[in-house]
Amino acid sequence: MFTVEVKVGLKKGVSDPEGANTLKSLELLGYDEVKSVKSLKVYRMEIDAPSREEASERVEEMCRRILTNPVIHTHEIVFL
Amino acid sequence: MFTVEVKVGLKKGVSDPEGANTLKSLELLGYDEVKSVKSLKVYRMEIDAPSREEASERVEEMCRRILTNPVIHTHEIVFL
Repeated sequence: MFTVEVKVGLKKGVSDPEGANTLKSLELLGYDEVKSVKSLKVYRMEIDAPSREEASERVEEMCRRILTNPVIHTHEIVFL
Repeated sequence: MFTVEVKVGLKKGVSDPEGANTLKSLELLGYDEVKSVKSLKVYRMEIDAPSREEASERVEEMCRRILTNPVIHTHEIVFL
């Protein structure tokens, strides 16, 4: 059993209002040291697979099929 | 400059419809090997701080003040 995190972010050039608003709110609270905020979505899944390679391939396929929209999203697969 | 990820998840017992629906959709597509899906929100921020400890303290404070709701959220701070 593997625990995998799929991190879905936005491609460069795609606007990220949630990140921008978080940055603005932090600035208003005086956290000037924060220079940028990007929001990402993570799906943490437990997956049964004979090997890490196979798990990775399957998760990559899931990303293509339903977890991400390739027009606007980037994704990253991380094993915990 | 540090790059920090704040991972905001839901506490045990708090329902996670997004995770549950993602799991259901994956099952419908035949991905029976996926045993659970949890959804998390990540804020990836760049922060200027004299040390990792100070950055960590400030981010912890931001979590308490605006990034999370302690009634339903857990959070984790990860330096990249």
